[in-house]
Amino acid sequence: MAYRFAARMGKTPRSFIREILRVTKDRSIISFAGGLPNPALFPVDAIKEAAIDVLTEKPTEALQYSTTEGYLPLREWISERYQKRAGLSIPPENILITNGSQQSLDLIGKICIDKKSPVAIEKPGYLGAIQAFSLYEPQFHPVGLELDGPDIACLEEIVRRYSPQIFYGVPNFQNPSGITYSDEKRREVGEMLSGTDTLFIEDDAYGELRFRGDDLPLVHQFLPENGIILGSFSKIIAPGMRMGWIAAPQEIYEKLITAKQASDLHSNYLSQLIIHQFLASHDIESHLRLIRDSYRRQRDCMVKAMEEFFPQEVTFTRPDGGMFLWATLPDGISSIDLFELAIRKKVAFVPGNPFYTDGGGSSSLRLNYSNADPDSIIEGIRRLGEAMKSLIG
Amino acid sequence: MAYRFAARMGKTPRSFIREILRVTKDRSIISFAGGLPNPALFPVDAIKEAAIDVLTEKPTEALQYSTTEGYLPLREWISERYQKRAGLSIPPENILITNGSQQSLDLIGKICIDKKSPVAIEKPGYLGAIQAFSLYEPQFHPVGLELDGPDIACLEEIVRRYSPQIFYGVPNFQNPSGITYSDEKRREVGEMLSGTDTLFIEDDAYGELRFRGDDLPLVHQFLPENGIILGSFSKIIAPGMRMGWIAAPQEIYEKLITAKQASDLHSNYLSQLIIHQFLASHDIESHLRLIRDSYRRQRDCMVKAMEEFFPQEVTFTRPDGGMFLWATLPDGISSIDLFELAIRKKVAFVPGNPFYTDGGGSSSLRLNYSNADPDSIIEGIRRLGEAMKSLIG
Repeated sequence: MAYRFAARMGKTPRSFIREILRVTKDRSIISFAGGLPNPALFPVDAIKEAAIDVLTEKPTEALQYSTTEGYLPLREWISERYQKRAGLSIPPENILITNGSQQSLDLIGKICIDKKSPVAIEKPGYLGAIQAFSLYEPQFHPVGLELDGPDIACLEEIVRRYSPQIFYGVPNFQNPSGITYSDEKRREVGEMLSGTDTLFIEDDAYGELRFRGDDLPLVHQFLPENGIILGSFSKIIAPGMRMGWIAAPQEIYEKLITAKQASDLHSNYLSQLIIHQFLASHDIESHLRLIRDSYRRQRDCMVKAMEEFFPQEVTFTRPDGGMFLWATLPDGISSIDLFELAIRKKVAFVPGNPFYTDGGGSSSLRLNYSNADPDSIIEGIRRLGEAMKSLIG
Repeated sequence: MAYRFAARMGKTPRSFIREILRVTKDRSIISFAGGLPNPALFPVDAIKEAAIDVLTEKPTEALQYSTTEGYLPLREWISERYQKRAGLSIPPENILITNGSQQSLDLIGKICIDKKSPVAIEKPGYLGAIQAFSLYEPQFHPVGLELDGPDIACLEEIVRRYSPQIFYGVPNFQNPSGITYSDEKRREVGEMLSGTDTLFIEDDAYGELRFRGDDLPLVHQFLPENGIILGSFSKIIAPGMRMGWIAAPQEIYEKLITAKQASDLHSNYLSQLIIHQFLASHDIESHLRLIRDSYRRQRDCMVKAMEEFFPQEVTFTRPDGGMFLWATLPDGISSIDLFELAIRKKVAFVPGNPFYTDGGGSSSLRLNYSNADPDSIIEGIRRLGEAMKSLIG
C-alpha cells in the first residue's frame, strides 16, 4: 500500500543529534556530543529506598490511573521550591507534571501553535524545542543571542512586526550556547513582553545547576501574566524517569490539561511518587552541591584545555552553570568539516547548524562537559584542537 | 493579556468522563463510570521485587536518557508474546514503547491526520481515541457496530467514498460496547482494507482479558501491510506506570520514532525495566488467570443483576472479556436524564453520547464492572434499575 502521512511530518528535521549519537556509540570515541547528566551522580541508593517506601506504603496510588494534573504533594514541593529559590508565588494548582521538558514543549506547541503561527526563538536555539514546535508548522523568527542574553532590539522588532504567539528562551546556562541572561536583560525581556500578547516560555531546565556567581531572578517575575516556566527533574535527579513540569497561568493551564489528557492521560505515577518520596526524605541541597561541584570541575577542566589546545582564533563561552559550552571557528571554517575530521580522531561534538532555524551556525559547535571525566576531557580537547589547526591551516 | 490558542483547541471535546469522574469522587457513590482495572489484582510484591532488582543491578540504564524506541528486552518480550499468542511474526525492530495506549493514539494522530483528513471510527467509539484524534482536526466517519463487529457495508462505502487515512477499531471486548468482532468479520475487515490505502489501527488493549470462549486471530494477520497494533500493560499489570506499545510496518515506524522523539524523547526507562524484570521473573499466565477469573465473576454478577433488576425493554451486551458492557434504553429515553436520576440514588455510569462522533447514543450507557465488588455491583444495578423504571414509567 502507499502510506500517507500528515503534512507536518515532511517539515520535521530529522534529529541531527540523534544521528550523531549513533556514530558516537562507538565506545572508543570521546564524546562531547550528547547532553547526558553525569550518571555517577545519580542518587541510586536514595531512589531505591524511595521506590521501596512507595511500593510498601502506597502501592495502589502509585500503580492505578490517576489525575491528569499530577501527584499533588509533588506539585506542592515544586511550588514551595519556587517560593524558596526565587520568591515566586506559584500555587500547585498552576503546576502540571509532564514527561520531562520535551513533553512540556510538545504541549505548548499543541495548544499555542497553528500552521504558520509566528514563534520567536533564540539563535542558536534549543534543538528539542525546534523539533517539538516544528511539528506544529510555525514560522520561526530567530532572536540573536549575545553573551548577556537576547538581542533586545531584534526581539522588539519581531514582537512589533509579527506579534508571535510565544518567545521561547533558556535564560540560565542556555542550551546550546551556555550563556546566561544578565539581570538587566531579564528585566528588559520582561518589561518588553508585558502588555503584549506574546507568551515567554522560560525553559529553566538548568537553573539549579549554577556553579559560579549568584542566582538571578527568573524572568517570570517581570511578566507573571505572560510567563510560562518549564522545569525538570532530569538534571537534578535523573532523566530516565522522564519527569518535568509546566507552571502556567490559569487560562493556559486548563488548555494544557486538555492537551495532556489527550496526549497520555497523565504522567507515570510510580515515578512521581518515587521522586516525591526522594525529595521528602533526602537533603536535595547537599545533592545539588555534589552535582554543581562536579560540573564546575568538569567545566573548568574543559575551559583550561581549550585555552591550551585550541587555536587562538577560536572563541568560546565560559558558562556559569549547566552542561554545555559553545565554540566558534573563524569565518568560513565549517564545523561539519571539523566534525568529520574529529570523528577520525575519535572525538565528537555537535556542529552548530541544527540549532539555527534560519540556516546559520555553520562555524559553531556545542560541547558537553557533564558526561566526561577530566582525563577524557583533556585528551578529547587536545585532539579537537589538532583537528582545528589542521583545518584552519 | 489576551491569550491566543491554536485553532485545534477549540475542537477538542472536554472529557465528559473526566467531569463524571469528578462527580463520582464522592465515596458514597457506587461508580460503574470509570475504566479502572481492579487494584486488588495489581502484583504489588512482584513489582516491588522487580524494582529492587532493577535499581540494584542496572541503576544507570534505568535512570539515564536512552533510546526513543524503548528497552530492547521488553520489545523482545512483546514480539515473542505475539508469536506465542497469535502466531504473528512482529520483530522487536517494529515495536515502539509508548506512555500507554493514549500516547499511541496521539502519535498515530500526529503522523497520519491532517486537518479534515477522513478518519473512520467505530460507533460507538473509544473516547480516548476520539479525544486524541480530535486535536488533529479530522473528519470522522463513524462505522456502526453490530453485535459481531463493524457494519461491513458501511465501512466499505466509507472506504470507497472517502479513502480514510485510518480505520480505528477495538476488535476484542470493545470499549465502550463490550462486543467482539467475529472470526468472519475479522477476515472481512482485513480483506476489504488490504490493497486500499487505509490503515487499520487495531487497539488490542483488552485482548489478554478473554474470560469466555476461545481467542480469535488478530485482524492484523489478514492485512499485515495495512495493520498497526496497539498494546498496553495497563490492563495486565498496572496503569499507573503508563506503559504501552505500537507495532507498525517499517515506513510508519520511522515516522512514529520522529514523532515520539519530538513528543518526549522516550518512555520512562525505570518503569520499562521494572516491567521487563517482572515479566522475566514471574509467571504472567497465572497472573492473567487471576485477572480473567475475577473479571468473569464481576461480569457474571453484573449481568445477573441486570437480568433481575433492569426493565425488560432495556437491552445490553454480554461481553466475553474486557471491562465494560453497554446497555440501551427504549427509544426516546435519555441516558443523560437517567444519569441525573442515578446520581441522586448514588450510582454512576457514562451516558452514551460522548462515544458518538455524530451526536447519537443518547439512549445508551456504558457500565464498567472491573472495579466494583459483587455486593456493590448488585446494589448499584438494583438502584439503577429503579431509576430506569421511574424514568420509563
